[in-house]
Amino acid sequence: MDSISLIAMASVITAGLTIGIGAIGPALGEGRAVAQALTAIAQQPDESDTITRTLFVGLAMIESTAIYCFVVSMILLFANPFWDYVLSTVEG
Amino acid sequence: MDSISLIAMASVITAGLTIGIGAIGPALGEGRAVAQALTAIAQQPDESDTITRTLFVGLAMIESTAIYCFVVSMILLFANPFWDYVLSTVEG
Amino acid sequence: MDSISLIAMASVITAGLTIGIGAIGPALGEGRAVAQALTAIAQQPDESDTITRTLFVGLAMIESTAIYCFVVSMILLFANPFWDYVLSTVEG
Amino acid sequence: MDSISLIAMASVITAGLTIGIGAIGPALGEGRAVAQALTAIAQQPDESDTITRTLFVGLAMIESTAIYCFVVSMILLFANPFWDYVLSTVEG
Amino acid sequence: MDSISLIAMASVITAGLTIGIGAIGPALGEGRAVAQALTAIAQQPDESDTITRTLFVGLAMIESTAIYCFVVSMILLFANPFWDYVLSTVEG
Amino acid sequence: MDSISLIAMASVITAGLTIGIGAIGPALGEGRAVAQALTAIAQQPDESDTITRTLFVGLAMIESTAIYCFVVSMILLFANPFWDYVLSTVEG
Amino acid sequence: MDSISLIAMASVITAGLTIGIGAIGPALGEGRAVAQALTAIAQQPDESDTITRTLFVGLAMIESTAIYCFVVSMILLFANPFWDYVLSTVEG
Amino acid sequence: MDSISLIAMASVITAGLTIGIGAIGPALGEGRAVAQALTAIAQQPDESDTITRTLFVGLAMIESTAIYCFVVSMILLFANPFWDYVLSTVEG
Amino acid sequence: MDSISLIAMASVITAGLTIGIGAIGPALGEGRAVAQALTAIAQQPDESDTITRTLFVGLAMIESTAIYCFVVSMILLFANPFWDYVLSTVEG
Amino acid sequence: MDSISLIAMASVITAGLTIGIGAIGPALGEGRAVAQALTAIAQQPDESDTITRTLFVGLAMIESTAIYCFVVSMILLFANPFWDYVLSTVEG
Amino acid sequence: MDSISLIAMASVITAGLTIGIGAIGPALGEGRAVAQALTAIAQQPDESDTITRTLFVGLAMIESTAIYCFVVSMILLFANPFWDYVLSTVEG
Amino acid sequence: MDSISLIAMASVITAGLTIGIGAIGPALGEGRAVAQALTAIAQQPDESDTITRTLFVGLAMIESTAIYCFVVSMILLFANPFWDYVLSTVEG
Amino acid sequence: MDSISLIAMASVITAGLTIGIGAIGPALGEGRAVAQALTAIAQQPDESDTITRTLFVGLAMIESTAIYCFVVSMILLFANPFWDYVLSTVEG
Amino acid sequence: MDSISLIAMASVITAGLTIGIGAIGPALGEGRAVAQALTAIAQQPDESDTITRTLFVGLAMIESTAIYCFVVSMILLFANPFWDYVLSTVEG
Repeated sequence: MDSISLIAMASVITAGLTIGIGAIGPALGEGRAVAQALTAIAQQPDESDTITRTLFVGLAMIESTAIYCFVVSMILLFANPFWDYVLSTVEG
Repeated sequence: MDSISLIAMASVITAGLTIGIGAIGPALGEGRAVAQALTAIAQQPDESDTITRTLFVGLAMIESTAIYCFVVSMILLFANPFWDYVLSTVEG
Repeated sequence: MDSISLIAMASVITAGLTIGIGAIGPALGEGRAVAQALTAIAQQPDESDTITRTLFVGLAMIESTAIYCFVVSMILLFANPFWDYVLSTVEG
Repeated sequence: MDSISLIAMASVITAGLTIGIGAIGPALGEGRAVAQALTAIAQQPDESDTITRTLFVGLAMIESTAIYCFVVSMILLFANPFWDYVLSTVEG
Repeated sequence: MDSISLIAMASVITAGLTIGIGAIGPALGEGRAVAQALTAIAQQPDESDTITRTLFVGLAMIESTAIYCFVVSMILLFANPFWDYVLSTVEG
Repeated sequence: MDSISLIAMASVITAGLTIGIGAIGPALGEGRAVAQALTAIAQQPDESDTITRTLFVGLAMIESTAIYCFVVSMILLFANPFWDYVLSTVEG
Repeated sequence: MDSISLIAMASVITAGLTIGIGAIGPALGEGRAVAQALTAIAQQPDESDTITRTLFVGLAMIESTAIYCFVVSMILLFANPFWDYVLSTVEG
Repeated sequence: MDSISLIAMASVITAGLTIGIGAIGPALGEGRAVAQALTAIAQQPDESDTITRTLFVGLAMIESTAIYCFVVSMILLFANPFWDYVLSTVEG
Repeated sequence: MDSISLIAMASVITAGLTIGIGAIGPALGEGRAVAQALTAIAQQPDESDTITRTLFVGLAMIESTAIYCFVVSMILLFANPFWDYVLSTVEG
Repeated sequence: MDSISLIAMASVITAGLTIGIGAIGPALGEGRAVAQALTAIAQQPDESDTITRTLFVGLAMIESTAIYCFVVSMILLFANPFWDYVLSTVEG
Repeated sequence: MDSISLIAMASVITAGLTIGIGAIGPALGEGRAVAQALTAIAQQPDESDTITRTLFVGLAMIESTAIYCFVVSMILLFANPFWDYVLSTVEG
Repeated sequence: MDSISLIAMASVITAGLTIGIGAIGPALGEGRAVAQALTAIAQQPDESDTITRTLFVGLAMIESTAIYCFVVSMILLFANPFWDYVLSTVEG
Repeated sequence: MDSISLIAMASVITAGLTIGIGAIGPALGEGRAVAQALTAIAQQPDESDTITRTLFVGLAMIESTAIYCFVVSMILLFANPFWDYVLSTVEG
Repeated sequence: MDSISLIAMASVITAGLTIGIGAIGPALGEGRAVAQALTAIAQQPDESDTITRTLFVGLAMIESTAIYCFVVSMILLFANPFWDYVLSTVEG
């Protein structure tokens, strides 16, 4: 097993698991926030503007943690510094 | 075990697990949001338009985390940069 | 263990686990949504049309995550790019 | 350990685990839906037709995820493309 | 370890685990459905016919997932295609 | 490690684990059903006949999943087809 | 490691784990049923006969799953068919 | 590692784990039953005789699952048939 | 690794884990029972004698499962039959 | 790895894990009991003497399971019979 | 496996898992905070300014734990001191 | 790997895990007790003296289980009998 | 694998996991505290100053546990005493 | 792998895990206590002094378990007796 195979394997496996595991929390958190927003609108229809606005700001905050995971996953696939180094040593 | 086998195996296993694990959170989160939406409509039928619209925006946000996983899974299967590199070295 | 055995094994195991794990979340989420829909109908029979329509859109969204898993599972079994490559090298 | 043993073992184990794990979610989800349906009928007997119809559509959706698992399990046992290939190479 | 031992072991272990794991979900789901049915009958004795009928249809749906597991378990023990093939090669 | 030891070990371990794991779900499910039945009788003593009858049908359904496990466990101990084959090859 | 040691070890470990794991579910299920029975008696003292009788039938059903485990455990210790066979080959 | 060491080790480890794991369920189940009994007495002091009697019968049932584990544990330590056999072969 | 080391290690590890794991259940169960007893006394001070007496009988039952674990743990440390046998063979 | 190292390692690891795992249950159980005691005092200040006394007896019972673990941990560190034996053989 | 491969692999895997695991807690915590904020606005619309302001300060605190993980993940990928040292020894 | 390394490693790892695992239970238990104490004070301010005093006695009991873990952890680091023995044999 | 690789790998992996695992608890705890703070403000707007002040002190306490983890993580990356020692031996 | 590498690795890994795992419990416990404190202040603003004072004493108790973990973590990094000994033997 040479360096290229090892780093490629580790990158592939990690890229998938990062977004796979990292999607659980945001999805559950957003589900909870959306669910409560609907209850709140049903209880207080006159405030639906404030509720919706607060909901979207909150969803953006929660989505940000999923996006951190997606960014790391993309970096590992397409801008992986370790892979770039190993390629440069092979091709250099 | 040569590089091709190793990277192919890692890609296959990761592609499946990424979407397999990544589907749990969104499915549960969407189930919760839909369930609460139905309760909200039953409580406040007059607001069913606002509720449904907020629900669909929320579902789209939650679905997005599942789609991140699906995208990574597809990239691993059909646009895998490590696999492309290894193939190019073999065929080059 | 040659490449063919390894990739075949990995594909078989992953194809099964992907849909096996991936069915847990949608099934639970749909169960929750259906259960709440029935409660909502019982509370507000006059809105059963809106409730049922919203339920079916929601179920379709949740089912979509199960279908992502099923698609990946089928791809791994019948349109596996890694398997195709290995076969082509063997037969080529 | 030759290819035949390996692929046969992997298929046997995966076929069982796929349906074994995959039955947990649908069974729990259906149990929840049925339980809530009975509560709903008890609360609103006049709507038992709508409730029962919605329940059966919902159960069909949930059962579909169990059936995906069963289909993959059967494919692995009786229409396994990897097993077919290996047999063809042995007998060919 | 020859092929016969390996496939026999894998079949034995999988046959047991499939039904062992697969019995958890249906048993819990049916327990929930039966429990709620009894509550419903106590609340609305006049609807006990509708409730009982809906319960039995629901139990049949839930039991079906346990039966999928039992079927796969029996296939692995008594109609295992991989075992049949290996026996035929040994005896053939 | 010859075939006999391996298959015997696998059968012993699986026979125990099958019923061991498989007893958890039915026991919990039956406990829930019985518990709710008692609450229902306390709430509606006049319906105790209907409740008890529905309870026993439900318990029979739940017990059936435990019995599937027990049957597989007994088959593995006393009517194991793989063991029978291996014995026949040894003694034949 | 000869056959005798292996089968003896597997039998010892499985016999213990079977009843160890298998006792969790029945104990929790019976605890729930007994607890609810006491609540029911406190709510409806006049029905304590019906409640107690239903409780005992239910406990017998739940206990049966523990007894399945105990039976398998005893069979593995004192009537183990694999052990008997191995002994017969050694002593025969 | 001779047979004596192996079987002795397996017996020691299993004897401990059997009662260790097996004590969790009964202890939790009894705790629940006792807790509910006290609530029931506080609600309905006049029925404390019936409640206490039902509690003790229930505790005896639950304790029985712990005793099964203890019995198997003791058998493994002091009346272990496999150990007896191995000793007889050594000393015989 | 001679027999003495192996059996001593197994005994040490098992003795600790048995009481370590076995203390979780009784402690939680007793905590629940005590907690409910205090609530019951606060609700019905006049019955504090009956409640306290029932509590102590219940605690004794729950404590018994912890004591089973402690007994097995002590037997493994100070009256271990396997250790005694091995010592006798060494010293004999 | 000689006997001394092995038994010393096993003793060190087990001594720590025994009290580490064994502290979880009692701490949670006592936390629950204390929490409920405070609620009970707030509800029924006149019974604070009875409540406090019952609480302390209960805490002593729960603490006893932690003390069992601590005793075993101390025995393993400072009065370990297996370590004493091994030392005696080395120094003897 | 040389130092470069090892440290690169460890960095890749850790970078992914750190943010993957570290995103679960903040996402769930933020989801809970947002959900409760919407309920609070629905209950007390006049205080929506105070509630929103407190929510955003709280979200910032919770997000900070996700950012710690993201920072460590980025450091491991792009400013890894161990990788820098190893590169310097290779190139130096 | 000589005895010194092994015992030192085991001591280091165990010392950390003992207090790491052992801190979970007491922290959660104390959190629960404190939380309930504050509720109790809010409900019954006149009894805040009794409540606070009972709380502190309870916290001391719960803290004791954390202190057991800390003591064992410190013994393993600074008064480890096995380490002392090994050092004495090396230096002796 | 030389000392440098080993210690570097261990430091990288531990630095990530420490903050990754350590962020779960504080994030959930802070989420709970913030959520309850918003409910409290909605219930008692006049006390929003006291509530906000208590909330911030509490958040600081909870954040401190996350900061302990971050500090250890940073020490492992940038002020690791073991790494410093190993470098000094290599370069010295 | 020499002693220095082994002990350094074990210390690094344990130092991180100790505080990483040990931060979960206190953070959750403190979150619960703070959350309840805010509810209590909202219910009984006049007692906010007593509540805040009791909260801070309680937080200090809970924080103490996190500090135990931090102390052990720091000892392992900067005052590790085993590391000191090994260094003294190397340099001595």
